[in-house]
Amino acid sequence: MEHKEFDLITFGEIMLRLSPPMNERMVRGDIFEKRAGGSELNVASGVSLLGLRTGIISKLPENELGTYIKNRIRFVGVSDDYLIYDESQDARLGIYYYESGAAPRKPAIVYDRKSASINHICLDEIPESVYTSTRCFHTSGISLALSKEVRAVAIELIHRFKKGGALISFDVNYRANLWSEEECRATLEEILPEIDVLFVSEETSRRMFQKQGQLYDIMKSYCDDFGVKLVATTQRIVKSPRKHTFGSVIYDAATDTHYSEAPYEDIDVVDRIGSGDAYVAGVLFGLLKYNDAEKALQFGNATSSVKNTIPGDLPSSDFKEIAGIIKAHTATGPVSEMSR
Amino acid sequence: MEHKEFDLITFGEIMLRLSPPMNERMVRGDIFEKRAGGSELNVASGVSLLGLRTGIISKLPENELGTYIKNRIRFVGVSDDYLIYDESQDARLGIYYYESGAAPRKPAIVYDRKSASINHICLDEIPESVYTSTRCFHTSGISLALSKEVRAVAIELIHRFKKGGALISFDVNYRANLWSEEECRATLEEILPEIDVLFVSEETSRRMFQKQGQLYDIMKSYCDDFGVKLVATTQRIVKSPRKHTFGSVIYDAATDTHYSEAPYEDIDVVDRIGSGDAYVAGVLFGLLKYNDAEKALQFGNATSSVKNTIPGDLPSSDFKEIAGIIKAHTATGPVSEMSR
Amino acid sequence: MEHKEFDLITFGEIMLRLSPPMNERMVRGDIFEKRAGGSELNVASGVSLLGLRTGIISKLPENELGTYIKNRIRFVGVSDDYLIYDESQDARLGIYYYESGAAPRKPAIVYDRKSASINHICLDEIPESVYTSTRCFHTSGISLALSKEVRAVAIELIHRFKKGGALISFDVNYRANLWSEEECRATLEEILPEIDVLFVSEETSRRMFQKQGQLYDIMKSYCDDFGVKLVATTQRIVKSPRKHTFGSVIYDAATDTHYSEAPYEDIDVVDRIGSGDAYVAGVLFGLLKYNDAEKALQFGNATSSVKNTIPGDLPSSDFKEIAGIIKAHTATGPVSEMSR
Amino acid sequence: MEHKEFDLITFGEIMLRLSPPMNERMVRGDIFEKRAGGSELNVASGVSLLGLRTGIISKLPENELGTYIKNRIRFVGVSDDYLIYDESQDARLGIYYYESGAAPRKPAIVYDRKSASINHICLDEIPESVYTSTRCFHTSGISLALSKEVRAVAIELIHRFKKGGALISFDVNYRANLWSEEECRATLEEILPEIDVLFVSEETSRRMFQKQGQLYDIMKSYCDDFGVKLVATTQRIVKSPRKHTFGSVIYDAATDTHYSEAPYEDIDVVDRIGSGDAYVAGVLFGLLKYNDAEKALQFGNATSSVKNTIPGDLPSSDFKEIAGIIKAHTATGPVSEMSR
Amino acid sequence: MEHKEFDLITFGEIMLRLSPPMNERMVRGDIFEKRAGGSELNVASGVSLLGLRTGIISKLPENELGTYIKNRIRFVGVSDDYLIYDESQDARLGIYYYESGAAPRKPAIVYDRKSASINHICLDEIPESVYTSTRCFHTSGISLALSKEVRAVAIELIHRFKKGGALISFDVNYRANLWSEEECRATLEEILPEIDVLFVSEETSRRMFQKQGQLYDIMKSYCDDFGVKLVATTQRIVKSPRKHTFGSVIYDAATDTHYSEAPYEDIDVVDRIGSGDAYVAGVLFGLLKYNDAEKALQFGNATSSVKNTIPGDLPSSDFKEIAGIIKAHTATGPVSEMSR
Amino acid sequence: MEHKEFDLITFGEIMLRLSPPMNERMVRGDIFEKRAGGSELNVASGVSLLGLRTGIISKLPENELGTYIKNRIRFVGVSDDYLIYDESQDARLGIYYYESGAAPRKPAIVYDRKSASINHICLDEIPESVYTSTRCFHTSGISLALSKEVRAVAIELIHRFKKGGALISFDVNYRANLWSEEECRATLEEILPEIDVLFVSEETSRRMFQKQGQLYDIMKSYCDDFGVKLVATTQRIVKSPRKHTFGSVIYDAATDTHYSEAPYEDIDVVDRIGSGDAYVAGVLFGLLKYNDAEKALQFGNATSSVKNTIPGDLPSSDFKEIAGIIKAHTATGPVSEMSR
Repeated sequence: MEHKEFDLITFGEIMLRLSPPMNERMVRGDIFEKRAGGSELNVASGVSLLGLRTGIISKLPENELGTYIKNRIRFVGVSDDYLIYDESQDARLGIYYYESGAAPRKPAIVYDRKSASINHICLDEIPESVYTSTRCFHTSGISLALSKEVRAVAIELIHRFKKGGALISFDVNYRANLWSEEECRATLEEILPEIDVLFVSEETSRRMFQKQGQLYDIMKSYCDDFGVKLVATTQRIVKSPRKHTFGSVIYDAATDTHYSEAPYEDIDVVDRIGSGDAYVAGVLFGLLKYNDAEKALQFGNATSSVKNTIPGDLPSSDFKEIAGIIKAHTATGPVSEMSR
Repeated sequence: MEHKEFDLITFGEIMLRLSPPMNERMVRGDIFEKRAGGSELNVASGVSLLGLRTGIISKLPENELGTYIKNRIRFVGVSDDYLIYDESQDARLGIYYYESGAAPRKPAIVYDRKSASINHICLDEIPESVYTSTRCFHTSGISLALSKEVRAVAIELIHRFKKGGALISFDVNYRANLWSEEECRATLEEILPEIDVLFVSEETSRRMFQKQGQLYDIMKSYCDDFGVKLVATTQRIVKSPRKHTFGSVIYDAATDTHYSEAPYEDIDVVDRIGSGDAYVAGVLFGLLKYNDAEKALQFGNATSSVKNTIPGDLPSSDFKEIAGIIKAHTATGPVSEMSR
Repeated sequence: MEHKEFDLITFGEIMLRLSPPMNERMVRGDIFEKRAGGSELNVASGVSLLGLRTGIISKLPENELGTYIKNRIRFVGVSDDYLIYDESQDARLGIYYYESGAAPRKPAIVYDRKSASINHICLDEIPESVYTSTRCFHTSGISLALSKEVRAVAIELIHRFKKGGALISFDVNYRANLWSEEECRATLEEILPEIDVLFVSEETSRRMFQKQGQLYDIMKSYCDDFGVKLVATTQRIVKSPRKHTFGSVIYDAATDTHYSEAPYEDIDVVDRIGSGDAYVAGVLFGLLKYNDAEKALQFGNATSSVKNTIPGDLPSSDFKEIAGIIKAHTATGPVSEMSR
Repeated sequence: MEHKEFDLITFGEIMLRLSPPMNERMVRGDIFEKRAGGSELNVASGVSLLGLRTGIISKLPENELGTYIKNRIRFVGVSDDYLIYDESQDARLGIYYYESGAAPRKPAIVYDRKSASINHICLDEIPESVYTSTRCFHTSGISLALSKEVRAVAIELIHRFKKGGALISFDVNYRANLWSEEECRATLEEILPEIDVLFVSEETSRRMFQKQGQLYDIMKSYCDDFGVKLVATTQRIVKSPRKHTFGSVIYDAATDTHYSEAPYEDIDVVDRIGSGDAYVAGVLFGLLKYNDAEKALQFGNATSSVKNTIPGDLPSSDFKEIAGIIKAHTATGPVSEMSR
Repeated sequence: MEHKEFDLITFGEIMLRLSPPMNERMVRGDIFEKRAGGSELNVASGVSLLGLRTGIISKLPENELGTYIKNRIRFVGVSDDYLIYDESQDARLGIYYYESGAAPRKPAIVYDRKSASINHICLDEIPESVYTSTRCFHTSGISLALSKEVRAVAIELIHRFKKGGALISFDVNYRANLWSEEECRATLEEILPEIDVLFVSEETSRRMFQKQGQLYDIMKSYCDDFGVKLVATTQRIVKSPRKHTFGSVIYDAATDTHYSEAPYEDIDVVDRIGSGDAYVAGVLFGLLKYNDAEKALQFGNATSSVKNTIPGDLPSSDFKEIAGIIKAHTATGPVSEMSR
Repeated sequence: MEHKEFDLITFGEIMLRLSPPMNERMVRGDIFEKRAGGSELNVASGVSLLGLRTGIISKLPENELGTYIKNRIRFVGVSDDYLIYDESQDARLGIYYYESGAAPRKPAIVYDRKSASINHICLDEIPESVYTSTRCFHTSGISLALSKEVRAVAIELIHRFKKGGALISFDVNYRANLWSEEECRATLEEILPEIDVLFVSEETSRRMFQKQGQLYDIMKSYCDDFGVKLVATTQRIVKSPRKHTFGSVIYDAATDTHYSEAPYEDIDVVDRIGSGDAYVAGVLFGLLKYNDAEKALQFGNATSSVKNTIPGDLPSSDFKEIAGIIKAHTATGPVSEMSR
């Protein structure tokens, strides 16, 4: 397998996440839990925890909050080499507030990310060398949606990394609060020809791309139409805010095969945020480590399922833990309750 | 709709509630969570959060604990205009200690409310103007049971508010640790002719009032016998201390109709205390806002169900949240997991 | 003494304040303490806790954070009648992050208040009736500095309240991070003719207004030059971040007298933020309650000193507590260690 | 019933247990919950809480951590008369780290008990009088597995207590991380002839002792082969880390009878550690108090089930609570949700 | 030295103490720290921690709060053999709320101890054997002041223990909120002839007993007038709520000598409550262990000084720690900063 | 200035540190704060935070606790490239327990570091390339004292780094609980000829090395006798556990000059542990960045002083903060209380 300095570089906004403890509400209480989060950071840290070398391109304010985020990024093993610091007077860190749900109460989110420093990122600030120093580049539809400025940078990054020889991974991750379906579709159709690994939900395929018919055929159509090499679609059943079932399907164009396995049932959901990103991390790890779509599926499903049980956006599972979960999930006989 | 200064005035004891954090026990640990609670305060705050103007008549010690309770009352939007402060040397705030359950362990309660300042409340201390300044007056059987003194005040308040033109709402809320079924029944029979809206459990109807037959007929009988206009009975199924199902039936004498809807299934119970009061709040809001028994039922069920997911006695749901829960509950298609 | 619905209405931004617990740092740790703060809210709540009726004119986002602030405002007894809610998509609550100091480490502050909803406040949103319903109106230089929009509203409010018969109180509270000294001075000179009660530091008098000579003469000059009726200047000695000495001087033009008293020595500083606002609150209370500059001085000094010992921006001292502190401060014999 | 100073003396290691709060992970976070634990302490405290007099023989370091453990032992009502303090320079308290699970993540344990002071315990340090002052002596396979030194002491204690007239209770509690099945079996066969009450899992019976056939016959075989008087085997079904079902079977040789009852279904597992020890405590209490195998079964099942709902190794249920749980478990009609 | 089962038995009320964390206020915040406290328990636990055997006579409610107190009593090594449980419906545990001070804010206390179970204690409930099984009996003026019932029991206990051969220790501990100086003095004069060891403040000697002149002469006068054997008077200088200086004087009638030493300067006061009781504990330990007034003084001063640095009423210092503090206090050369 | 991959590599044990919150005691309470610490890690992280690139050579257990430490190391910006993981069954992380002091109570420490994985470190496990990839190598007397194995590795590392061209820095840091003064001195005399930068206390110079006379001459003597290039000696005055004064002297052989400055007075000590290591970090930063002994002194004093105000072993101050503290310390006019 090819060796480069990084296995994965991602690009995206990193935010401060503030949450009341477990069941408390935003409108009351004296405490916020303070964490770092952001879709592309979550992906990078998931891959890093599994053992590959990753970094993230982002822009942070040059103040204590930027330093906090930098420290957290290091904590999860992601390189801070490509972090850019915003020294302008308006520098700010985007924030989101998150409150857990409990049936019949849904989780609640308040975003406060307008004018965050990420929107002032310039291509000049990113060292040219990065484009050839990584095996894979990943970003998501959130980065495209943040602002015209960030969108332009994200698309140019895709071009440059593609040219630099990196595998291009993209998670549609459509957010109706950031842009319209029309604007999103038009933008995606522009970049899909460069995308190698596509993460897209069934709902997005049907609503935004107006695809119809069987899921398996829909997934394949991205490869036929745009030359995507691998398409992954997750399948989450929300029984209640605290109990989910999770599985996924991966279509591999090279072998024209769909992969899937029995879903993880009755997941004890502690914190659902970031579990989609953890799926991306597991899949990318499987591809980058083993170049094997089936392993990608297994790692994606396991990494995502276990993320649900961990507080915060960021995953916290190393290779040994995920391997153990895959083993237990695929085991047929009795499984020990805990390892002493 | 008639306009008065207040939509709802309630009367009752307000207590300090002390609880060990989530799963810890009263007999151990170093911390108590400190909250305000009390059936009639819970009702007033629930209605206030939904958007109407409420107040409470009660008596608190003139010390730091009384001030704490006053601050909390304001926090939930209930007027403190009718709080009376006890400056006597024996002034005290009633307390109850509450510990959550987890199957097979039941929740546990220890009351320490003897000689609380509420027992020294006098009619003279309550300004006369209040009797004509509210659209609805509510109290509960707990207030009747606290002591002979409080009972006399509560009954006289019913008389005066009735005379002042208020709708009279009453929740039987029978507590075997405070008085006997006989004493309770005798007292209730005295005030039932003045009650417009009656909240009574099926168990109380059958055991205390010795009613037999179908629940629907039992509910109707209160209207036939005493002139009650609307009777509401909740139906809770306790699957475990952490998993309940909740629904209710309302009988509206004016239209001679029983209302009910599909129950809320598999509620994630975080704190069950006050969910009965939240039901009363939802029903009263429905009546006072829409004068509509079906809306009253929907608001009652939703407000009560969601209260179970919130720590403390007091509800924390505004109109927007409850409306969203009702909408999701009555929706037929797929429902979004969370709103971004 | 004249009676109006409110004794004091203030105008200003209300922010979310986030702080790591006591000695922890912003760049580390898992927790932020969550509080409400803002100079003019601090003043209103201080006066309210002392027993007068106050309200605040401000604009908050129509979301959970706006509700949190509203609840907190009620908690400290300030009316939320004049809060305006921003329903626009860009609605946001300003934030500041605060970290305590410990010698030789200074306290640290990071502001994130750009584009907060307060900047979208319009005069139309404020009911006309407010201008004649209060005895005193207060705002500060921070409101003038936030943005051109807020400045215009603040100045117009001063005009309207003045016309409505209110005493106009103003705290210069110069913040170099918000505007220049020149811009500040020019703006102040425009409004000084309408100001009745002026709070200004000696440093600001000397640097911004280029005044020279004795402090007493400097204070008097504002009355001579602009018709200010009462000028108050605080005197804080920072021995260390945890140990301050605090006193003040008040000049009363009516009697042409300077008032001062022995300073509070060796204050145990727990949280210094808001102690200047608490001083304003104490002085305004003294004026509005007793119309007595000496009492104003005593209440100002006591309220400010004790605020330093209380976590958060907002004061938490009622009349009884402040009266006790004044009594102990002015006592000559031995003073009891604590009251049992 | 025979009276001695103690009803039960146990022997075993007592450890410091460190756990991240509820869902947090060992590899992150700033806090460990600090508790005392150890199989034989758990048993003694369970019996003590139910109302009998117990003590424990163990060795602790002569430092603040040893004092902490001593204080905790007293807190749960176990006598510290037979605690021995290790004043050597190498004195240390064994530790284990425990992290809760949430499906699909299993609980995790890290042991750090090598070279703990318990390994330096000598028979000379234990006063001779203890052997005749108790009605029952209990230890477990963990004590046999810790080291050759502790094993020798444990076996000699069994000899001496047997000679002193005590009932000998033993819980196999096989731990693969401490010793091999072969070594364990050989050691057990040596002491089984002295054991009166044997706790052994079905898995251990089948794997280690290579027993085959029906569980009931397997249990009986220990009595036939070694003269054991009573054999107890628990039956736990792990639906998820947070949801267990628990029951057990007891075989009483004297009456040649197997006892069992309906299992406790859907236990809300808060902390599973120590629930096996709580079972032993319940059974021993039933035997020592009532000399009745059926009561032993009921107390064992109830005590173990409720322990799962309580944080930490140590139980926290007194006689009244366990009696209530047994009553509710065996009741046929409706059961109150909570006692007010 | 005479050997009896107990070295010290005390009598008094044990309360639940509830405090907001460090600088928070009673009127705000979501948390109370939960502790056990009470003057005579504090004394017993202080002596117990230093190595002697103690017990306490008191009455607690037969509920979870009574159990909590019992557990705490055991935790600090005091025997619960003489605790009596109140099974009446009115059983309650007295409470006090305590808030720390910070200059210029004083500590604040709210008592809620009316009708606590201690007031229902009867002599019949106390086993006769206790009167001859202890070397020393201690109670305080608080027990005399609680109610006529408790006073009668306390006085009769003094009679019986005196007759049983115990040294009688008494701490005047006058509380103006419980009774008048006149009532107190009259009661004390009745029991002073039976008191061997008297703890009395200079202020009480001068105000209540109207004594005049030098402190040394005043102390001696109790011995001359009533036959007291040893009189101890503490000398505390409150520089601020967080900085005290502490010393004391002891007069020993047998040798007609006054003992004193250099005071402990600049004590870092974390929690002042119970430091007076810790002094009593140190003095009694010195007397009971060494029968030496000078050692009593040293232990009293050290135990009291260090108690100020420990949260809660109850001390937490063993013999080794106190011996180290005495050594450092009396050392002349440089003292190590900490022992590694 | 010479460029290498690392500016500083240190070698030493990294431990888990467990502390009760602020004033609580080890023998009580339910919580330990969990941190990483170790003299040489503290040094590396201090230099890293100031802006240079550092790494640490150490050995950690291959389990969750080792991962926790690795995460923390990354958090403070120290490279984990030279961490070695111990996969043996006996792998363990050394621990120390630390409790803060408050006058007259001293801080307390309990070590539990015997048999930690660091003792199994082998030279073979360390990649050869490290010896030439750093500008400076630092270790301390603690590493020499841990065990004969670690000592041999440490001494050999000094040889190899010296040969590889690194500056050799050494902090005597004598710990009487680890080895005798004789053994320490003999070992040091062996390595002193290779040491370039020596940190040694005056007490150690006088007691262990038996040096006499003026401090300045003593410091110089290490250069004369062993060829040391720079000697630094700190001067701490412990006024109380919470109030220290700190300064230092540096002797630079090249210029034969002693440097010192006014000490930092009245430091508010939050956590004294690691402040000596922070001094080393500041000095090394000054040398490596500026090659200037006076700057080294200023950075050493500032970094150490501010570390005392920060919880935990590890520093948390970046270049900007330290530069600000130096500036304020050396300023002559009035200094702003905080920067807004």
